[in-house]
Amino acid sequence: MTGALSVVGLGPGGPDVLTPEAAAALEHADALYGYGPYLDRVPPRPGQSRHASDNREEGSRAAAALRHAAQGAKVAVVSGGDPGVFAMAAAVCEQIDGGEPSWRDLDVSVVPGVTAMLAVAARVGAPLGHDFCAISLSDNLKPWDVVERRLDAAAGAGFVIALYNPISRARPWQLGKTFERLRERLPPATPVVFGRAVGRERESVSVFTLAAADASAADMATLIIIGSPFTRVIERPGRAPLVYTPRFVPDGGT
Amino acid sequence: MTGALSVVGLGPGGPDVLTPEAAAALEHADALYGYGPYLDRVPPRPGQSRHASDNREEGSRAAAALRHAAQGAKVAVVSGGDPGVFAMAAAVCEQIDGGEPSWRDLDVSVVPGVTAMLAVAARVGAPLGHDFCAISLSDNLKPWDVVERRLDAAAGAGFVIALYNPISRARPWQLGKTFERLRERLPPATPVVFGRAVGRERESVSVFTLAAADASAADMATLIIIGSPFTRVIERPGRAPLVYTPRFVPDGGT
Repeated sequence: MTGALSVVGLGPGGPDVLTPEAAAALEHADALYGYGPYLDRVPPRPGQSRHASDNREEGSRAAAALRHAAQGAKVAVVSGGDPGVFAMAAAVCEQIDGGEPSWRDLDVSVVPGVTAMLAVAARVGAPLGHDFCAISLSDNLKPWDVVERRLDAAAGAGFVIALYNPISRARPWQLGKTFERLRERLPPATPVVFGRAVGRERESVSVFTLAAADASAADMATLIIIGSPFTRVIERPGRAPLVYTPRFVPDGGT
Repeated sequence: MTGALSVVGLGPGGPDVLTPEAAAALEHADALYGYGPYLDRVPPRPGQSRHASDNREEGSRAAAALRHAAQGAKVAVVSGGDPGVFAMAAAVCEQIDGGEPSWRDLDVSVVPGVTAMLAVAARVGAPLGHDFCAISLSDNLKPWDVVERRLDAAAGAGFVIALYNPISRARPWQLGKTFERLRERLPPATPVVFGRAVGRERESVSVFTLAAADASAADMATLIIIGSPFTRVIERPGRAPLVYTPRFVPDGGT
């Protein structure tokens, strides 16, 4: 019997943003693996085992899930947002690439979900309406100078920038450094969106200028979008402003 | 009575990838606006009017939807994938920005969805597992030299690149030019994924090397992902290969 492993995107929050495809994959699994708080979002089912692990253990979690699937089980690895964006799908592939040859025989699938930058963008309008990039600020897995080179390239070429993993207790200075660096390369009025826990309880979304953006307002649950020089803010009396990046770039634009 | 306008992401294809939040927004609308083929994906409902338009008419479609909402109606503008990525959310914001002051009083919301690059990435593994960017190859709304500058910046800084709107009858040469340009900047073995109509009937997904990638294999319904120098292919006997970008960049990496 060949086992199966699916990496399932839960989307940003509640059941409202979970696709039916993801819900079905969770329902049919014999075993669930994931970071504890993500597993907690999935209602328990009789006969289904649950294997919670910490958020710095992606590699060993993926290996444990693969070993379990190799015994013939249907295993689902849960991921917040989309599993393909700075999440478990790559961790599973890394383990298959370097692990047991038999893992290549498994039926492996990835079920996409709404990733955090799309959820945050939706809350404020359309800041990702034109060319954009996504950068993880974590320097646990890459040297910081690679991050800096990518920030420079993105800002210089006019990309809107979505920042994942902006800050944590172990990485306190990277976001402040990022704002400093981008202030040398982008106009002070560039809109910056902080979206915290979007789609979940105690969601908060704030819009600043790059000049005023303060790293200490972010935490691990925050996704940050930094506009391009073309990103605009529409003030609305009695309503939150809309932030969007037009679909067009004028001749002579960046 | 204040009208409401929501811009709703249908995801890549069928009802399986439509979030419950999006389904509810479609159900509660008095009127639907959208590009014909996207509207066709939404089952008709008694009492709900439907306003189809062509795919080059985003601005006038958005304005018509806003006028309708300003009369007090609940209007939904449908978008394939995610409405915030090269789609209708920015078109609606553009119209609000330059249009009737009363449009700023409307209750405007955006309902996110699974955008094409996430759906295509999920089909092959995790090619977007590390820093990446999304670029529209359409030069209808921006000068071609801006596209080239962004391609160069992205390839030079080690981003994986997702290409939206790669080719059309009116834009036949841009994708070929893009491959030529990237061949000068990336290794010949760089994996390139073509995902056509993913999540819909007659879906097809192919993996090439950059050296062998052929623009004529793409059409309007294709989304292309070009790996970084770190993107890897895992061959699997009897199964399609997995394509992924590791979460880590070694010291001294691009």
